[in-house]
Amino acid sequence: MANITKKVSWSSRGDDRGERTPLLNGAEEAKYNKQDIVRSRPKEIPHNEKLLSLKYESLDYDNSENQLFLEEERRMSHMPIAAGSGIPQIKCYLNGVKIPRVVRLKTLAIKVFGVICSVAGGLAVGKEGPMIHSGAVVAAGVSQGRSTSLKKDFKIFEYFRRDTEKRDFVSAGAAAGVSAAFGAPVGGVLFSLEEGASFWNQMLTWRIFFASMISTFTLNFFLSIYHGKPGQLSSPGLINFGRFDGDSVQYNLYEIPLFIIMGALGGMLGALFNVINYWLTIFRIRYVHRPCLQVMEAMLVAAVTATVSFAMIYFSNDCQPLGQDSTEEYPLQLFCADGEYNSMATAFFNTPERSVRSLFHNPPGTYNPITLGLFTLAYFFLAVWTYGLTVSAGVFIPSLLIGAAWGRLFGILLSYIASSQSIWADPGKYALIGAAAQLGGIVRMTLSLTVILVEATGNVTYGFPIMLVLMTAKIVGDYFIEGLYDIHIKLQSVPFLHWEAPPTSHWLTAREVMSSPVTCFNRVEKVGRIVDVLSNTSTIHNGFPVVVDTTDNDDEPGKICGLILRSQLIVLLKHKVFVERASSRLSQRRLQLKDFRDAYPRFPPIQSIHVSQDERECMMDLTEFMNPTPYTVPQETSLPRVFKLFRALGLRHLVVVDNENRVVGLVTRKDLARYHVGKDGLEELHLAQT
Amino acid sequence: MANITKKVSWSSRGDDRGERTPLLNGAEEAKYNKQDIVRSRPKEIPHNEKLLSLKYESLDYDNSENQLFLEEERRMSHMPIAAGSGIPQIKCYLNGVKIPRVVRLKTLAIKVFGVICSVAGGLAVGKEGPMIHSGAVVAAGVSQGRSTSLKKDFKIFEYFRRDTEKRDFVSAGAAAGVSAAFGAPVGGVLFSLEEGASFWNQMLTWRIFFASMISTFTLNFFLSIYHGKPGQLSSPGLINFGRFDGDSVQYNLYEIPLFIIMGALGGMLGALFNVINYWLTIFRIRYVHRPCLQVMEAMLVAAVTATVSFAMIYFSNDCQPLGQDSTEEYPLQLFCADGEYNSMATAFFNTPERSVRSLFHNPPGTYNPITLGLFTLAYFFLAVWTYGLTVSAGVFIPSLLIGAAWGRLFGILLSYIASSQSIWADPGKYALIGAAAQLGGIVRMTLSLTVILVEATGNVTYGFPIMLVLMTAKIVGDYFIEGLYDIHIKLQSVPFLHWEAPPTSHWLTAREVMSSPVTCFNRVEKVGRIVDVLSNTSTIHNGFPVVVDTTDNDDEPGKICGLILRSQLIVLLKHKVFVERASSRLSQRRLQLKDFRDAYPRFPPIQSIHVSQDERECMMDLTEFMNPTPYTVPQETSLPRVFKLFRALGLRHLVVVDNENRVVGLVTRKDLARYHVGKDGLEELHLAQT
Repeated sequence: MANITKKVSWSSRGDDRGERTPLLNGAEEAKYNKQDIVRSRPKEIPHNEKLLSLKYESLDYDNSENQLFLEEERRMSHMPIAAGSGIPQIKCYLNGVKIPRVVRLKTLAIKVFGVICSVAGGLAVGKEGPMIHSGAVVAAGVSQGRSTSLKKDFKIFEYFRRDTEKRDFVSAGAAAGVSAAFGAPVGGVLFSLEEGASFWNQMLTWRIFFASMISTFTLNFFLSIYHGKPGQLSSPGLINFGRFDGDSVQYNLYEIPLFIIMGALGGMLGALFNVINYWLTIFRIRYVHRPCLQVMEAMLVAAVTATVSFAMIYFSNDCQPLGQDSTEEYPLQLFCADGEYNSMATAFFNTPERSVRSLFHNPPGTYNPITLGLFTLAYFFLAVWTYGLTVSAGVFIPSLLIGAAWGRLFGILLSYIASSQSIWADPGKYALIGAAAQLGGIVRMTLSLTVILVEATGNVTYGFPIMLVLMTAKIVGDYFIEGLYDIHIKLQSVPFLHWEAPPTSHWLTAREVMSSPVTCFNRVEKVGRIVDVLSNTSTIHNGFPVVVDTTDNDDEPGKICGLILRSQLIVLLKHKVFVERASSRLSQRRLQLKDFRDAYPRFPPIQSIHVSQDERECMMDLTEFMNPTPYTVPQETSLPRVFKLFRALGLRHLVVVDNENRVVGLVTRKDLARYHVGKDGLEELHLAQT
Repeated sequence: MANITKKVSWSSRGDDRGERTPLLNGAEEAKYNKQDIVRSRPKEIPHNEKLLSLKYESLDYDNSENQLFLEEERRMSHMPIAAGSGIPQIKCYLNGVKIPRVVRLKTLAIKVFGVICSVAGGLAVGKEGPMIHSGAVVAAGVSQGRSTSLKKDFKIFEYFRRDTEKRDFVSAGAAAGVSAAFGAPVGGVLFSLEEGASFWNQMLTWRIFFASMISTFTLNFFLSIYHGKPGQLSSPGLINFGRFDGDSVQYNLYEIPLFIIMGALGGMLGALFNVINYWLTIFRIRYVHRPCLQVMEAMLVAAVTATVSFAMIYFSNDCQPLGQDSTEEYPLQLFCADGEYNSMATAFFNTPERSVRSLFHNPPGTYNPITLGLFTLAYFFLAVWTYGLTVSAGVFIPSLLIGAAWGRLFGILLSYIASSQSIWADPGKYALIGAAAQLGGIVRMTLSLTVILVEATGNVTYGFPIMLVLMTAKIVGDYFIEGLYDIHIKLQSVPFLHWEAPPTSHWLTAREVMSSPVTCFNRVEKVGRIVDVLSNTSTIHNGFPVVVDTTDNDDEPGKICGLILRSQLIVLLKHKVFVERASSRLSQRRLQLKDFRDAYPRFPPIQSIHVSQDERECMMDLTEFMNPTPYTVPQETSLPRVFKLFRALGLRHLVVVDNENRVVGLVTRKDLARYHVGKDGLEELHLAQT
């Protein structure tokens, strides 16, 4: 991130953008050029995972003192955000990265429509990812009391117009989404916490918990009406895997090693899934980036899915007698004799969650092992291909289906080996374990997934095996490649901050990490200079340290006395909070917090604000608007310490000072996300504007 | 916290403690005297909840740069720590407060013995609190690879000899305790997180989760052997409330208001429990502080419990025919005809958890409403009286029993009102809801308690009602008084940091909050001065800012360049890491990190280290041992910002600097815990040495 030093002397004419030449001294110039090279190099399409994109902005989760800190947004081109499952985007949002339009109402509408089409169209997709995303969007909208897409402001909840509050709502919305999808309110809370939260906050947990609860209640209420038993609230979530009840739900010590083997298998298959999807995504970023190509690919996937399904059903001779199992509501006779139904067709032509339920609960002997093997193989590759298409799609349900299929196969094979009466060779149980293993191997969640699966199957007994399997799958999977969501986050070059700084980064200090020189403002600054700095398109900064007014001795950096955000300066400029050079400061117009809240979160660009030549000569007193006590660190602070401070407090800007409290640098999210451990130790990512 | 300024000039003789007179300038002296008054005033027994005790030390959860930061302990008198449930102590430990001997092996032995006696003796106590505490103690011991009580060092796990690592182990141990007690591994994880963690850390969650899992597995394995079915792992935890299975587990929309009413009732009864216990505890602190009185009180409670039980059984005529219910293994005939058993005796003379199970699962009609009413009344007061006795006792099970009794009563009364065939008037269901309400009203946990109860009853359907009831109970209860654990923490004057700074504290700045003046050391300091400062018994500090060596101009504070802990100085003195004034610095003896780890956590007192008169004249170079980049804040930082930094990073010392980076004050845990919101707005607690 290249910064322009405050020593640069701009021409004060307003119309000569692009002609200005910064006047730098030798050392500064060298530094500046180095920065410039870093910035200008990667102008191509970001298909390279060694890149870190500068197009993503940070959110400000650290509330400022005077409550005046608000956020700004920049116009930029972006990919259609309503495709995919939405979970990686929400994960980034909760991490503090602003993904453009991720929580807008328009996104929601496209998403809902998209998921209906893709699920009904028979693609190998689930509806839970989009549901979780939808929950988050609704929550973000509700919290703001207005919608940009609808151009409507309900003038309510104005106090929630801050990044911190909005984050809490988004967390709660995501939890409510999980809660509704799986009937898993506690699982939803844990999902939000495991994927999103960095600071375990009692109030946040409460809010999330409450949202989850209401979501479950509302869903159950409407489901009870839909099922014709109004008021009967014991229905589970929208996606129903059926309950494991009664005496059959037992397991034995001898099965523990089998569960571990299945977990390892799930980890390996999950890693395979992720590797293939990774290469596919890179291929897509390189060659399938035009919308017409994307639509064609989606159509191709749909065609192949249909073809493969029909071919497999046609060549399958797995016909089962009707009436044998109770969970089958719509048996398909396709290519079978009367009084029989086609088992392969059952697996393919039901909704995926109904297929999962059949695999969990149908009695032994319902499925032919060959059917299951072929189905697993075909569905695996279809699901890999489908995830990451520009359609709304979740990966949870397809993963569960793949896992349930090979898990059941595993169980059937076991029952061949062991005596078939043995209770522990119940194939349904192995289908559940397999489903957990496969899903864990792909997304690598543990705690929340355990609870979600326990809640979705209404059974606590299998909690321990599920846990064990998820942990094994995670450990094995992590050996090969990251989780699917992390892969997609990385491929989009999002500056995502992980839980800890990279392990070998102790020798790096703030001095090496920070961006410098930093553009600073004086406490009382000339309006013209502020406009020039904000209008400079080559370096778009969002936070500026405020320094004690220096005399004309510009050779040494100023002492820090505050921090002000671009968004605040924009609001100040818009409201013409100026004083003429000669007049007293008391005449400066006073602003209310409300003025800042009203502008949140889409602050106007600097270009839309007209500042006359006379006004450029005025001064602006930043004292009452800046954050007077920004967090600072000395230059010698190590990267892990900076990282911890940044992550724990949800910062957006961290000022680096020398031992005289003079500003020497600024650390932002990009500076920290740049470092990661690669094959040859610590690596530094390049920064790209795209 | 009164500090001695470094301007104080001590006599350099080693044997004149108590005769020294600090030489202070006027302003400093006034400040010092004011501090002295605050410190010296409350010398009486701390029965006053407006006090904050200085006897509790902080733990250092912020790892220092050079990894040399370790912890020290001070000898002090303390209450017998093995009494009570142990949960408030563990809560404090995880919050970062060092409660003396809370995680020692001796404590464990006393605890285990105590809980066996008190449960077997028929007191109104549970065994789960001590089990959770035991888990934490075992974990702390394992993590250190040695035991002070056994005087044995296994020389393993030396890298875990740090506060941060030990905290993680203690969290995991507590989770394992819950997991074993209730068969609730996920509940255990949430318990640790809800009660203890402040920074949601993926690695920590993993560790806790893993510990919980192993705990459940081990317990199930041994239970399966005990039950004669080795390898059959589906057993629940030690405390078994029986499963809610089958079709009866349903609820209806009409019942939601009833659940909310029960939650409110639970909140009120819980608040009553807490208020009575609060006054009782104050009474005990004032009048029952001698061990013989404590033993006598315990004996009195036991006698009264037995008398009340017998009297109630004698006067009860609730005789039920034998064989009607299957869960009753040991029916008691007491005062009943042959072929009948005494229902009141069942409630009183079983272990409390067996009574809870009977109340949950016995068929309708097993209990007489009058029996339940009287039992609730009697047991409520017995439980209030028993909690806080100097015996090992948990409050979970008694609370559940009280709640189950009145919940079942509530259900029976409902079935009188409604038609008795109606499925929703199943008294067992209302017993469960009542139990949740009562426990929630007393301890005020929500998320973790929901999961624990779901896991302990093996039923997911009631998850939503339990949640609803726990939230209502918490909201209603919080209106009257805090939760039981918080009350006990407050009454022990522990400097506990809550989740957020008090709401009205925005106008307070670090300048008002900090302790000053601060004792600082020079980077190269005279050994004699270090010994004098550490030996000063009137001001026991644990952290000292290190400042850039100043000349003899002592009038202005020095510029900060590091922070060093008392424990580190003690290790340095013990190993005689000195240089003679004349010689080069290179001759200073080098220490390894191991030297510091070996001394953890019981560093010798300064009095045990002999420093000769010659050695006092030597110098000590602190550069390589101090933390070179301690977190600092400017004086103008507001209390909520300081609080957030402190809480999120788990700090022990936070240095306050002026805008020249000169040390002007030090903020410790006590300085922050001192502020709380009382009846008249923000109040400041007094500090006491006891």
